Amino acid sequence: MNDALTAALRRAAGHQRRFDARFAAYFDSLTDPAGSHLEIPRHGTFPARALQLVRELSLRGGKRLRVTLLHEAAALVTGETVPGLDEAAISIELLQTHGLIHDDIIDDAPTRRSGPSTYYAYRQEFPDRPDTALALAVLAGDLAAFLAGRVLLTGALPPDRALAMAAVHADTAASTVTGQLLDLERDFHPAPGTELLHEVTEYKSTRYSILAPMRLGLLAAGADLAPHDGELRRYATALGIANQIHDDWLDLFGDPRSLGKPVGSDIRSGRRSYAVRTLLAVCDAKERAVVDAALGAPDCDDDTLDRIRGIARAHGVDRLLRTDADRHARQAEAQTARWRERWRPDAVAFFAHMPAWSVTRDR
Amino acid sequence: MNDALTAALRRAAGHQRRFDARFAAYFDSLTDPAGSHLEIPRHGTFPARALQLVRELSLRGGKRLRVTLLHEAAALVTGETVPGLDEAAISIELLQTHGLIHDDIIDDAPTRRSGPSTYYAYRQEFPDRPDTALALAVLAGDLAAFLAGRVLLTGALPPDRALAMAAVHADTAASTVTGQLLDLERDFHPAPGTELLHEVTEYKSTRYSILAPMRLGLLAAGADLAPHDGELRRYATALGIANQIHDDWLDLFGDPRSLGKPVGSDIRSGRRSYAVRTLLAVCDAKERAVVDAALGAPDCDDDTLDRIRGIARAHGVDRLLRTDADRHARQAEAQTARWRERWRPDAVAFFAHMPAWSVTRDR
Repeated sequence: MNDALTAALRRAAGHQRRFDARFAAYFDSLTDPAGSHLEIPRHGTFPARALQLVRELSLRGGKRLRVTLLHEAAALVTGETVPGLDEAAISIELLQTHGLIHDDIIDDAPTRRSGPSTYYAYRQEFPDRPDTALALAVLAGDLAAFLAGRVLLTGALPPDRALAMAAVHADTAASTVTGQLLDLERDFHPAPGTELLHEVTEYKSTRYSILAPMRLGLLAAGADLAPHDGELRRYATALGIANQIHDDWLDLFGDPRSLGKPVGSDIRSGRRSYAVRTLLAVCDAKERAVVDAALGAPDCDDDTLDRIRGIARAHGVDRLLRTDADRHARQAEAQTARWRERWRPDAVAFFAHMPAWSVTRDR
Repeated sequence: MNDALTAALRRAAGHQRRFDARFAAYFDSLTDPAGSHLEIPRHGTFPARALQLVRELSLRGGKRLRVTLLHEAAALVTGETVPGLDEAAISIELLQTHGLIHDDIIDDAPTRRSGPSTYYAYRQEFPDRPDTALALAVLAGDLAAFLAGRVLLTGALPPDRALAMAAVHADTAASTVTGQLLDLERDFHPAPGTELLHEVTEYKSTRYSILAPMRLGLLAAGADLAPHDGELRRYATALGIANQIHDDWLDLFGDPRSLGKPVGSDIRSGRRSYAVRTLLAVCDAKERAVVDAALGAPDCDDDTLDRIRGIARAHGVDRLLRTDADRHARQAEAQTARWRERWRPDAVAFFAHMPAWSVTRDR
């Protein structure tokens, strides 16, 4: 592995540890009158329970790649400690929590991040009242959404900087909802086009997971976004597509043991992923019947999945996807070529190597 | 009717007309690259449809009392045109739209503001897919929530003022969700205490419908909130309770013809309103059986409601509620006594008369 990347991943592990502690302290401060105290009713238990479930899901956070992107983006322009990065990181991760809580209602998903989804935590607490569980989960997601915006407005940054960051967050949050809407629509198409899949990726994932952390990191560090925004967008868009194609590849061809989770979920849920779309485009009528029967069939067995995988390999779907992911990864990397002229080399190296790492991970 | 109040209500009608036009222009600007353009996917129809439903519900807005409170609050300190008031008004009304969309999912309510609820608009569009309709309605509500925060960040106000207003909005939005959570919990109590009802009123309604418009109006006009915040809170809290008790009174004792809608909805939905609570506290075992059978029975007929109304009147519930509402209205008015020393008389008169008007309307 490249030295710069090794160093960056080591920094990432440090960001993650520090952030997880900071995120827990943030939730503590919400109930501390001397902290960024949120006024909630003194009566009743529902408000505090919702806050606790938002906290629990938020703190089961995994690798925190978004937090790393944020810190590395700030490090593009300065080696100093940057105020406001913690608030930006909390904001983005709360936006993610919000999205997960509402997604798990939409998908009727019992588990999330190796624990119960918020919806199913409430389902367990109110076994006879699924409507109450649904209502509470909707509201818990809303609470996370408003906390995400709020944390950017209560820090100690200069007002113009805080305002610019809050505006990026608000644009990102609204755009992400439109991506979730398009994601629902995608599965109404028997075989959606690549352009539609690219737009789902861009709006549903890239904006908040890649572009917003980079913009927020640069803004917090005092950079002016305007001269760089086109490059940042092209970088984020290409990296987002590469990353998503690789995710979809892993879900069809990946090794469940190294992934630590079962594969085939896109087939079983009927999701028109890049892999499913490519497969549908190349197979003949007889193969198509096999694939169609499995698509959206939650009980599709492993033998059928193996057979579909064989069909895909025979048509070169495996290779096609890897070629596509590589191409987008190279497009992302190419955007960073001129960053070395104006930005700090360690952080530029991180962004330059990220795309290649992103399409080889877990392979 | 008092002259100052007549003048204020005439001003209110003007605010409403102007605001409704401005709100429509805001929605136009979201799809105008030269306006406060929101980037949404070019593919698909779901994102644009969600935006359209948010728009339609938002523009069926009624009296816009919140907008009037905002303008009158600004008029406490200045007679000049105040930049930022329109954005603040849009923000508060979008927060309301968000709340209504999610409330109508929670209550499974088919109509809202004399039209279909967003959830049921989607139910009609996807008659065979209630899960899709639910998902789309959750996301449409989320979109309104994020737009509500965003509109305060894209105006032309000085950054420190915009930031203070955005912080008030974010606090209000998060607190309001905790009020909705407590509102759900309220109906788990067979007979919740007055303090709990007061807190539901405070968090679910008063904060965003009274306190936030007043704070935002003053902030937009350049006032410093800190010296007045205690008085504003006491005024808002007392007015909010007076207003809610009167609403609950109207739902039991009001005249459906002058209200333009059926009464008895709190009994039929089992809502522990101020009126229901007072009734339960005074009736004997035999009467209690009648009330209990009706509570939460959607098909409770008008004769039963008449009988319950008779029981309530016999115990003086009618008079008790009116006395309570009047007392809180007078507490609110008392807060305004010293406002005349420092603020502009026309606007002070509006706030001084509002509580008494609020507990006599539609009676």
